[in-house]
Amino acid sequence: MIKNEKITSRDVDFAKWYTDIVKQAHLATYSGVKGCIVFEPYVYAIWENIQKVLDEKFKETGHKNLYMPMFIPESLLKKEGEHVEGFAPEVAWVTHGGNNPLEERLCVRPTSETLFCEYYAKTINSYRDLPKLCNQWCSVVRWEKNTRPFLRTREFLWQEGHTAHETAQEAEEETMRMLNIYKDLFENYMAIPVITGRKTEKEKFAGAEYTLTAEALMYDGVSLQSATSHYFGQKFSKPFDVKFSGRNNELEYVYQTSWGASTRMIGGLIMVHGDDNGLVLPPKIAPTQVVIVTIKNTEEVLAKAHELADELKEEGVRVEIDDSDKSAGYKFAEHEMRGVPVRLEIGPRDLAEDKVTLARRDNHEKSVVTSEEVVPAISKLLDAIQKNMFDTAKKRNESKTYVCKTFEEARETINAHPGFIKAMWCGDEACELKMKELRGMKSRCIPFEEEHLSDTCVVCGKKAKHMVYWGIQY
Amino acid sequence: MIKNEKITSRDVDFAKWYTDIVKQAHLATYSGVKGCIVFEPYVYAIWENIQKVLDEKFKETGHKNLYMPMFIPESLLKKEGEHVEGFAPEVAWVTHGGNNPLEERLCVRPTSETLFCEYYAKTINSYRDLPKLCNQWCSVVRWEKNTRPFLRTREFLWQEGHTAHETAQEAEEETMRMLNIYKDLFENYMAIPVITGRKTEKEKFAGAEYTLTAEALMYDGVSLQSATSHYFGQKFSKPFDVKFSGRNNELEYVYQTSWGASTRMIGGLIMVHGDDNGLVLPPKIAPTQVVIVTIKNTEEVLAKAHELADELKEEGVRVEIDDSDKSAGYKFAEHEMRGVPVRLEIGPRDLAEDKVTLARRDNHEKSVVTSEEVVPAISKLLDAIQKNMFDTAKKRNESKTYVCKTFEEARETINAHPGFIKAMWCGDEACELKMKELRGMKSRCIPFEEEHLSDTCVVCGKKAKHMVYWGIQY
Repeated sequence: MIKNEKITSRDVDFAKWYTDIVKQAHLATYSGVKGCIVFEPYVYAIWENIQKVLDEKFKETGHKNLYMPMFIPESLLKKEGEHVEGFAPEVAWVTHGGNNPLEERLCVRPTSETLFCEYYAKTINSYRDLPKLCNQWCSVVRWEKNTRPFLRTREFLWQEGHTAHETAQEAEEETMRMLNIYKDLFENYMAIPVITGRKTEKEKFAGAEYTLTAEALMYDGVSLQSATSHYFGQKFSKPFDVKFSGRNNELEYVYQTSWGASTRMIGGLIMVHGDDNGLVLPPKIAPTQVVIVTIKNTEEVLAKAHELADELKEEGVRVEIDDSDKSAGYKFAEHEMRGVPVRLEIGPRDLAEDKVTLARRDNHEKSVVTSEEVVPAISKLLDAIQKNMFDTAKKRNESKTYVCKTFEEARETINAHPGFIKAMWCGDEACELKMKELRGMKSRCIPFEEEHLSDTCVVCGKKAKHMVYWGIQY
Repeated sequence: MIKNEKITSRDVDFAKWYTDIVKQAHLATYSGVKGCIVFEPYVYAIWENIQKVLDEKFKETGHKNLYMPMFIPESLLKKEGEHVEGFAPEVAWVTHGGNNPLEERLCVRPTSETLFCEYYAKTINSYRDLPKLCNQWCSVVRWEKNTRPFLRTREFLWQEGHTAHETAQEAEEETMRMLNIYKDLFENYMAIPVITGRKTEKEKFAGAEYTLTAEALMYDGVSLQSATSHYFGQKFSKPFDVKFSGRNNELEYVYQTSWGASTRMIGGLIMVHGDDNGLVLPPKIAPTQVVIVTIKNTEEVLAKAHELADELKEEGVRVEIDDSDKSAGYKFAEHEMRGVPVRLEIGPRDLAEDKVTLARRDNHEKSVVTSEEVVPAISKLLDAIQKNMFDTAKKRNESKTYVCKTFEEARETINAHPGFIKAMWCGDEACELKMKELRGMKSRCIPFEEEHLSDTCVVCGKKAKHMVYWGIQY
């Protein structure tokens, strides 16, 4: 295995490695507007696969897609106080339509809670109209200062679910149900282990009662908030007047949730699995699962390549043939850069022996099989790769998760090696802020499965209320 | 068949009928921004079905999806003269990011030619990189004065394909290929017959060499430009400097196309097929193809309903059960409003005789079949409805298409009954403009299959060059 010269080693300069991959694997190019990228075809195909998984799960759980306008009048955005405070500093404002100034300026949606509330207020009358379970796939805009492809872009793609319920209990169940769908996506499709839990008051979504989150750890030990699910209670339904006549014939406010996941997940996919040869994609998400690389384009080799491709397609494998006239080495490097899980090599010599070589992208292992064995061997291989990628990431996360009982211990740990720090916390925002002194570390979440690490807060030494995961964040 | 009281008759007030349906079938609601609508779940499901058909055909013909930024810097928009003239008067301008004025204002994309050109200029080097066959699904914004749901909204959903080729011939073939995909969608899925042809110079897309179009006729005889495919030649590649090194090692400009279809098609779907009871949807596009309506919710009726639904699902039929406690008449009217192609009625009496009633939405015919016959009967029915809807629309179009040889004849015809007017034309823009005096009539297209109706132009009487379809337009 030869290191790809086109990219910086991830152990030398992780940030440079990341942007090298984005460029060399043709994932994104920059546009003329800072922070706005072109999602190139290969990365968009990854996004479509992620969409497909989520969209099916949303529909199976009774949700329907719709589409809201991208513009929010300033007065509508301002209806819920915390919400507007959270978003107004970073929205893009439309002030002119054609040559005419607008009467009221419009923000390009940073998120659509306000629009969904307006819509629900119009269309919900009775408890019979509940629950309302809606989702939309769209792009949103947040005028961020520091941008990086996928991780933080001024425009990004996402889905946002917004639901309205008769009771608090139903809405809370929904909040948890959707977080679990994200966890399922991350762990069982994207091969990314996540810690799930609740955000602290300080870190919750602007306007929510509470926020549930799935937190992942990147190769460099920096954490990434990968998806969130918010319980709103009646915090939006009251200012937006979303009422229904209940079973007792009295008017009540609905209980709401929202939940979202974005193209930021693709940043996570790159940073969890990628290596010094490029992207490494889990088979369930990879646009191409198997690439058949012809070593020499004889008529027989091409015929066999197409025969095998057809057999694999029949089994539902996403396969492509690379019979370009580039050198074999060049082709190998190119498909490694793209992270294709399995490479099938076939040349005249293999053909003579009725054999082909299979090379795994994840651990670079090679095996030789007869052409009859190809289909079952690849099916097994794809499963094995999917599992190995998850296990590898899981093991790394464990090795990068540290228990700290004192502030000094936390300081030393995070300075020595970034990762998750598990530590007890008194619940005080002051202590949470104090942790920021340690390389900007923030609380990731209070995990659903708390452990009792000690009796006292890692910062102030007072009685601890919760175990918290802390980390430096993207 | 009783007329639905909630909607105006289409023969009394077609415009009112249209907005009644949009409201009563829960297709769209208005937002706080004029001309921006909420695409409600039911209409979004129709859109998803249309997307699926097109997306598959695009991918089968080698196209890849990607995603471009929604913002275009003013300087980029201005690079091609005709293009900016066509669009600048109706774009929305972003002038502020957060609290800060932008250095250069950004327009919210009305279409993305300029962005694709910028991207292609960066990523195309050699003839080996061609053809570039890309498409994007997104929303675009055009600040129109007069708006109507689906037909003309300030923000609408669409796809825009943009391709770059080595030769003019390849690009021209692509232009035609994509128009034919739209024709296939309209005729074989949406059951909407279209006239295909070429736009006149006056009506072509801003910046194109020429524009191909698919034109449909609505129930009221007004025409709708339903999809267009543009050949650009090198008109964009020159100002945007999209070059490649050719087979002879010389730098050449690429030849380009673009083609798009939007949620405006949904307006066409409503206006071609809808009747006084609401929407009528062709089975291939309908979110629900069969609704099983229970007449009385006994245990046996419910069990049978689910059994039949499962059998139909097995066969790939999109089926839903309405076992709500509303009256049968109310339920019938509701699903007619939504245009569900087949209603299956089942009650205790039917069950006793092992029979169910099938009611067609298109022609209101009813038939009674045994429960064993349900699956094959419905499969036949769906095919018959699809075919009948197309035939009905086709016959109506023919009856509303008139041949006119003189200007006076055209005037009388269009005043008496709107429709397509077929007439000869000398090719002069002055004559084209003169036709506008007749209820604002415009040229729809020079059809691919021209007929020789007479020797002289319908307006000026000089020698005719082409046969043209004319019509009042939405």
